Amino acid sequence: MSTVIKSILSEGKEGEKLVIKGWVRTKRGSKNVSFIALNDGSCLGNLQVVAAVEHFSEEDLKDVTTGACIEVSGALAASQGSGQAVELIAEELKVLGKADPDSFPMQPKKHSMEFLREHAHLRFRTNTMAAVFRIRHNLSFAIHKFFNDRGFYNLHTPIITGSDAEGAGEMFRVTTLPADNPPKTEEGAVNYAEDFFGKETNLTVSGQLEAELGALALGKVYTFGPTFRAENSNTTRHLAEFWMIEPEVAFNDLKDNMDLAEDFLKYCVQYCLDNCQEDLEFLDKRFVDLEKQKPANERSEKGLIERLQEIVSNSFERITYTEAINVLQNSKPYKKKKFKYPVEWGTDLQSEHERYLVEKHFGKPVIITDYPASFKAFYMRLNEDGQTVAAMDILFSGIGEIVGGSQREERLDVLEQKMKEFDIPAEEMYWYLDTRRFGTCVHSGFGLGFERLVQFVTGMGNIRDVIPFPRTPKNAEF
Amino acid sequence: MSTVIKSILSEGKEGEKLVIKGWVRTKRGSKNVSFIALNDGSCLGNLQVVAAVEHFSEEDLKDVTTGACIEVSGALAASQGSGQAVELIAEELKVLGKADPDSFPMQPKKHSMEFLREHAHLRFRTNTMAAVFRIRHNLSFAIHKFFNDRGFYNLHTPIITGSDAEGAGEMFRVTTLPADNPPKTEEGAVNYAEDFFGKETNLTVSGQLEAELGALALGKVYTFGPTFRAENSNTTRHLAEFWMIEPEVAFNDLKDNMDLAEDFLKYCVQYCLDNCQEDLEFLDKRFVDLEKQKPANERSEKGLIERLQEIVSNSFERITYTEAINVLQNSKPYKKKKFKYPVEWGTDLQSEHERYLVEKHFGKPVIITDYPASFKAFYMRLNEDGQTVAAMDILFSGIGEIVGGSQREERLDVLEQKMKEFDIPAEEMYWYLDTRRFGTCVHSGFGLGFERLVQFVTGMGNIRDVIPFPRTPKNAEF
Repeated sequence: MSTVIKSILSEGKEGEKLVIKGWVRTKRGSKNVSFIALNDGSCLGNLQVVAAVEHFSEEDLKDVTTGACIEVSGALAASQGSGQAVELIAEELKVLGKADPDSFPMQPKKHSMEFLREHAHLRFRTNTMAAVFRIRHNLSFAIHKFFNDRGFYNLHTPIITGSDAEGAGEMFRVTTLPADNPPKTEEGAVNYAEDFFGKETNLTVSGQLEAELGALALGKVYTFGPTFRAENSNTTRHLAEFWMIEPEVAFNDLKDNMDLAEDFLKYCVQYCLDNCQEDLEFLDKRFVDLEKQKPANERSEKGLIERLQEIVSNSFERITYTEAINVLQNSKPYKKKKFKYPVEWGTDLQSEHERYLVEKHFGKPVIITDYPASFKAFYMRLNEDGQTVAAMDILFSGIGEIVGGSQREERLDVLEQKMKEFDIPAEEMYWYLDTRRFGTCVHSGFGLGFERLVQFVTGMGNIRDVIPFPRTPKNAEF
Repeated sequence: MSTVIKSILSEGKEGEKLVIKGWVRTKRGSKNVSFIALNDGSCLGNLQVVAAVEHFSEEDLKDVTTGACIEVSGALAASQGSGQAVELIAEELKVLGKADPDSFPMQPKKHSMEFLREHAHLRFRTNTMAAVFRIRHNLSFAIHKFFNDRGFYNLHTPIITGSDAEGAGEMFRVTTLPADNPPKTEEGAVNYAEDFFGKETNLTVSGQLEAELGALALGKVYTFGPTFRAENSNTTRHLAEFWMIEPEVAFNDLKDNMDLAEDFLKYCVQYCLDNCQEDLEFLDKRFVDLEKQKPANERSEKGLIERLQEIVSNSFERITYTEAINVLQNSKPYKKKKFKYPVEWGTDLQSEHERYLVEKHFGKPVIITDYPASFKAFYMRLNEDGQTVAAMDILFSGIGEIVGGSQREERLDVLEQKMKEFDIPAEEMYWYLDTRRFGTCVHSGFGLGFERLVQFVTGMGNIRDVIPFPRTPKNAEF
């Protein structure tokens, strides 16, 4: 196996003989010498390959164009140029795979994000997207490591589900029935009894209810898997297919839940600060450049890395929904009627309110707890006041809600009553209710949309640019 | 937060004051003292709670029944009984959640695997299934750690796919069109242009093709996600929804690929031997007990842990398909006509042949390479002989094929020719072919069915018993 560029750039020694393979980013130079910037995806940095005219004719190098794959043998030398300690003096060079410059779509210039999405099969080869996907990997690993180190068990909850009771969003149907002529019942309805699973099935919107079953036996579990929403939302914040992390812990109350979520988010951010420095510095520059193009009042006052450091060095503000309403009603924008949406107890907070709390009033992440029961899910624990539930949302600057969670309703009678009010058929949910029937206990959990976290850490404006192959309305290419 | 039983059993000190929460496995005792076996899912072992008559009346303990959730305060004492170093002398005891003995389905006795599957929401609370799911977690973490430590990037390939070109198996359709009356084109066909993604979409059968795009930019990638087969297979080896791991590496040839797969499998098995000792010993006993009930000629000669140790301490045998055919044709069962299926060059190996090679002839894992092109996938690299491809299958005793992989066809012209022969529409696969058009290179990868690995490590006979919520024909419960 050949050596990877990441290790050469960090540990390469002058005089060392090497064979390197990678893709050409650029070639420039004079008639005496060519400089080839070579990248193999192991890191952002390129290895400079020096091909002198004594060894290589113009003909030898004619296929060494942007995008081509080459193999170079040579020895490392101290680099004259700035930005790198060593460069490779080429002795032999072989073109493994050409990239015809007339048709290769990725040029050594800035492409629009839209253009790159249309070429999702090649955008991995751009600096920006490769940095994003290396960070995405590091976040994924940090998540597994955080939970494993703390005694959680990873639980694979089902993707195809026969349960549609949670009501978290519109669902995709999964079927093997013929689309043009499905079997019908005597009454003329589609006969799902003949479908693959013998009933109507959908793609999951959340693994939480199943994770609760795991937690009430194994103690601490977490899911990390794809979830789906069939909503026709063409925004920079929505995907039809995205990944979610949902920890669930027996015996944790709302405070334990907040502590866990805060530790978790800080751990993930710190992990990237420690392990993705080069990629973060690159994305930080990109972020600052893009912010400069925005009107002054929409511009982020802080750089990307600065925002990340703020997460790990501040304790999150914790306030109840009722306190949040008070803060908002005493705020300047409220008094000057600058808020578009009403601020009154019993209505949900809008993005403008959340931004005010996080970015203006507290200047750090905020956890809002104890929302009115009326606009939160049926499984959240009813507080003693009979009006609010033990919910918590964590708000980040620039991104809004990044985590939503709650203490779960563990009391069978209260839960059954709630399900009645929410029109959830108890007989279909016998398996969920059984956990309250047999050895129930206090427990809590939360959900984190993985792409939201990747967006926050990478500073990418559009959620489609933090997932390899985005699925959105009218788009399932590749 | 209360202390978890795993840490008490390993580090608990005499005299230590504790609060413990968990579920009652059993209660037994005399009129003077009750012994409660308490489990909190953190490990297989129970904490023995001693409740003496001085502190607790019969009434106090009447709801302490199998499955109930309780909280106990007390102090640790050296245990008189065997099998544990410490026990908890209860001072206070609170029943958090009852489990009515007349209706609680999980009793402190052996239940059949079928019964447990029907109670998948409670089977997490049995020793066997909890051990399986703890090992499943450890395997999952080992996989992420193996690849992360070696510079691989985790890539989330799409679950919903518009591409049906790979032909790895029957697919599930994903749709939001009304089932009973879908929109039609003028020609009377279902009009998928009006479906959510603007075309017909399915659940993925493999992330490999997309992973190749990642590898030809980032160098080393791996997927770990759910995959689907809509096949009507009601066997102990098939699931409609299962998890797959697919590493893909630029510049790796078939030998590198074999080395990677062998290292990978050994690492995962060794990780469990190191980290899951208690659960493995429990499952080893179960395995040996079950083997005893089998007829002598079907019985495994080796214990579960012994089988695992063999994996890590042997190098895998590597032979070509052609050599395998020779071995088989010279074998006793062939000469005595004991094989049911023919053994001749050009036909695929059957399970009986694989078992002979692994269990009888070599007595260790076998990697078979260079199969005839005719029965392998279109993307496998054609060898110089023009007849075989650079494929590899890894066979384990008891389980058969655990890994399938290959060096990929990196030559555009050969690949296009192959796709023509396999009737794969090149225009739909432009994105895959582009990687061969622009900077192509030698690369390889393999696929591992995660549940097969969990089955091998846990010794579970039915694949449905190594996944939390199995999906099979006519079954998508929970």
